[in-house]
Amino acid sequence: MPKRAHVALGLDFGTESVRVMLVNTANGRVAGEAVVGYRHGVITETLPGSTRRLPSEWALQDPQDYLDSMARATRRVLRNAHVESQRVCGIGVSFTACTMLPTRADGTPLCRERTFARRRNAWCKLWKHHAAQPQAERITDLARKRKVAWLERYGGVISSEWFLPKALQTLEEEPDVWRAADVFIEAGEWIVWQLTGVLTRSTCHGGYKQCWHDRGAYPSQAMLTALHPQFGQLTRVKMRGPRFAPGQCAGRLTSAMADRLGLGAGIPVSASIIDAHGAVPGAGVTGPDVMVMVMGTSTCHMLMAARERLVKGISGVVRDGILPGYFGYEAGQVAVGDIFAWYVQHLAGTRAEADKLHARLTRQAATLAPGASGLLALDWWNGNRTPYVDANLSGLIVGLTLATQPPAVYRALIESTAFGTMRIIELLERAGVSIKALVACGGIANKNPLLMQIYADVTGRPIRVASSDQASCLGAAMLGALASGIESVDAMVRPPRASYRPHKGAHAVYGQLYAEYKRLSERFGRYRDPTMRTLRRIAADATGKR
Amino acid sequence: MPKRAHVALGLDFGTESVRVMLVNTANGRVAGEAVVGYRHGVITETLPGSTRRLPSEWALQDPQDYLDSMARATRRVLRNAHVESQRVCGIGVSFTACTMLPTRADGTPLCRERTFARRRNAWCKLWKHHAAQPQAERITDLARKRKVAWLERYGGVISSEWFLPKALQTLEEEPDVWRAADVFIEAGEWIVWQLTGVLTRSTCHGGYKQCWHDRGAYPSQAMLTALHPQFGQLTRVKMRGPRFAPGQCAGRLTSAMADRLGLGAGIPVSASIIDAHGAVPGAGVTGPDVMVMVMGTSTCHMLMAARERLVKGISGVVRDGILPGYFGYEAGQVAVGDIFAWYVQHLAGTRAEADKLHARLTRQAATLAPGASGLLALDWWNGNRTPYVDANLSGLIVGLTLATQPPAVYRALIESTAFGTMRIIELLERAGVSIKALVACGGIANKNPLLMQIYADVTGRPIRVASSDQASCLGAAMLGALASGIESVDAMVRPPRASYRPHKGAHAVYGQLYAEYKRLSERFGRYRDPTMRTLRRIAADATGKR
Repeated sequence: MPKRAHVALGLDFGTESVRVMLVNTANGRVAGEAVVGYRHGVITETLPGSTRRLPSEWALQDPQDYLDSMARATRRVLRNAHVESQRVCGIGVSFTACTMLPTRADGTPLCRERTFARRRNAWCKLWKHHAAQPQAERITDLARKRKVAWLERYGGVISSEWFLPKALQTLEEEPDVWRAADVFIEAGEWIVWQLTGVLTRSTCHGGYKQCWHDRGAYPSQAMLTALHPQFGQLTRVKMRGPRFAPGQCAGRLTSAMADRLGLGAGIPVSASIIDAHGAVPGAGVTGPDVMVMVMGTSTCHMLMAARERLVKGISGVVRDGILPGYFGYEAGQVAVGDIFAWYVQHLAGTRAEADKLHARLTRQAATLAPGASGLLALDWWNGNRTPYVDANLSGLIVGLTLATQPPAVYRALIESTAFGTMRIIELLERAGVSIKALVACGGIANKNPLLMQIYADVTGRPIRVASSDQASCLGAAMLGALASGIESVDAMVRPPRASYRPHKGAHAVYGQLYAEYKRLSERFGRYRDPTMRTLRRIAADATGKR
Repeated sequence: MPKRAHVALGLDFGTESVRVMLVNTANGRVAGEAVVGYRHGVITETLPGSTRRLPSEWALQDPQDYLDSMARATRRVLRNAHVESQRVCGIGVSFTACTMLPTRADGTPLCRERTFARRRNAWCKLWKHHAAQPQAERITDLARKRKVAWLERYGGVISSEWFLPKALQTLEEEPDVWRAADVFIEAGEWIVWQLTGVLTRSTCHGGYKQCWHDRGAYPSQAMLTALHPQFGQLTRVKMRGPRFAPGQCAGRLTSAMADRLGLGAGIPVSASIIDAHGAVPGAGVTGPDVMVMVMGTSTCHMLMAARERLVKGISGVVRDGILPGYFGYEAGQVAVGDIFAWYVQHLAGTRAEADKLHARLTRQAATLAPGASGLLALDWWNGNRTPYVDANLSGLIVGLTLATQPPAVYRALIESTAFGTMRIIELLERAGVSIKALVACGGIANKNPLLMQIYADVTGRPIRVASSDQASCLGAAMLGALASGIESVDAMVRPPRASYRPHKGAHAVYGQLYAEYKRLSERFGRYRDPTMRTLRRIAADATGKR
């Protein structure tokens, strides 16, 4: 590491904007920060320059926006922070996933070519593009039929948000786009390619979103070919490139890109990491056995461990998936903040009322003793990820009486998400994964002390809230520092902004409620239980959605 | 029947007021109607003339109020309707139940005596007086232990609202009140006593509220004595008096009472009927195999049949319990309108908003197709009467998603009460009780066409809505006509004000949902299922209510 280079650059590509951070590698202080939105945002209606409407469930982006916004944000942060570009020692990239695009062999996105600009599959498919659902279901079915071992690592289901369904959709819908695409690549990996001039891949994107595995590699050629005669090319040809772990140096900044960003050429660039996973180092967790909860509209639970265990219903376990040297585990709750927002909106009618109501309900719910609501909920308003991996599950509340007041419901909803997290902790521990501490980050962790206390009481464990409220971006900067050759980024970890200790009495009451939660979960979550699935089917029939 | 006498007088004693109706016996037209509130209303805070607070769960009335309000209302209705008192051929009484009081041998309420005016057990215990819960539980436990056959007629549980617990409470709490009470009597029976000067009883009050049976009489002396050494006196001595069925003449109006009411002496007075049961003839049902649903905050289901069958979880089956010559069946749902009011209040915050919201939700819910909500609820917000007879059960909603809107919840709540009614119909039919038609009356039946259509669609049967919106009072008048010697009151039945026919498609969808409702009910209603009971227990512990 050169002497002067003591700030690392983190580039965090979110759904609407890119955030750039300069972080002092000696103490973790943020020297500067900037956010720049994408010109085209999320494309769901019409392609740029076209008036033809996209089908529902489509969500695209323009990869040019990533480059433009990244350049503007980086120049702005360098200028405002008065940091000389020579002091930047390394660059890290975190990105939404699976956000993926087809390119030419030189990295040019197909959508940039005139021939393909009006072809929807030529654009970058954002993580929340859900139009490849039929492909996802066929892949899952085939994998189950073939009893492939790797399916277990993903809880038995391939999501429509992932790489293979999105690529298969291109092949099936627009085969000429497929043929013209020399490369299919995640946007995070593509940004690293643009920065370094070298096509590399990331173990993180690969392991969690692309069905890649360090030993077994991809699904077999036979299976891919069974999906479509040409689909075998995908992994063999169109997904080529060596894989690096986040924190490993994937290449060095090209002169062209250095000019564009206002940096010096040759700066080491880390392999890309998924944004949620970047929050692990960003939350100050750089070693094993500490669970990081990234809490927002949904919650991601992440953990590094020395060993690989198969755990029912987790979203993935990947060697070098988070930081090099560890197996990265990911589990999740599909809706958390979304449930509270739903309830408040349900009561409020208007958004203006909703904000006030949120605050009032929180205040009132805080005065209730654990268990006093008489209510228990299953937190499945958007289906369940861990452990049932079933989008057809739905929310349930039991214990309602004529005396039930809104603060009781609100508190029961918070508690239900805490029970959902407790379930994940228990599943991991039962499978032999050790969890020694809990760290939380994300919007909810910073804004909702009542919720955090309930989580501490339900889990019976202390919870630290990470210092940074931009853990993904800080994590990206830390990866940049690691890529530059720093041996440890522990010096960049700042003390927690808050911590919550469990109350013994509350934990005892929650223990009883959690036992009921588990019983109810098993009742309704079991594959053969018809209730929730039947309701979905009847509703789909009734609304003509089948 | 004297020639001129062609109007009957109905006296309907409600919780807050008495309603009086003059009805033409030739055509059922209402010649006049008046309502007069009780001076002391419901006494829950302090006894009249005292500042000492009553314990919680107490609900008393002053029997003098019944006499005063009845006299004022009767005089008013005679005056306003321009009906000569000589034209009144018979008087019927319907009354809330079990509302009961202790009296001297001459009928003087104990609370009217100076010695007992400050003794709470000397007053009239209103039906919703719930302070005899411990006594009710002990009676139920003992009856179960002794495996008494009559317990089955009441669904296996003696309610704290009934006669025996209320009398036992008096004996245990204030033995001198017990000793001074020559008679314990239901207020409906007491009014007939006051009108006629003769102590008689009613098969209706007896069968449904006093554990009386036409063949087996009361619980055995041995059992009563096991509850308290002196309790055996209750049925043998303090509940003496011959029983008459509603519609049978229990006696004739005394001169003193005739003067007070502005009527002629000697008018036949029918035995009293419970108000809900009075709604059966009042709704135009004077024969067997037609179920009458009295729909309001809760729903009573009543039916006359030629035979006695034991049906799990019904509230009672009583020979001559409704009209002479038939077995009267009663089943019920503890909360119906109460649930909708709860939900609207839950959303609204203020009562002013609630009224508007009710109308808007009804409008919006009407646009949803059956099954489209994706929701299913168990209508147990106030426990369940038929078939589980369990106050510890509670409400449940399943199928909630982030897309669930209030009209969907509102509709699901309506549907859940319809499923609850369907369950009762099915239970009766499976036990061999024939149900050939459905008739509805009460506030909801008159005001909520959406709900009535849903009930028709769920049950797959047409439903007629009774002409009168005061069926209990009209029924009382019809009983008065019967007591006067008229052979049939069919001429007093007016055509229904509305009728609803089931839609085949909707019934098919509801058939699927009803199957799930039954499955869920059995899951959570079973005696050994812990979920709802555990939540109640934890809440009671948490709020210090145990």
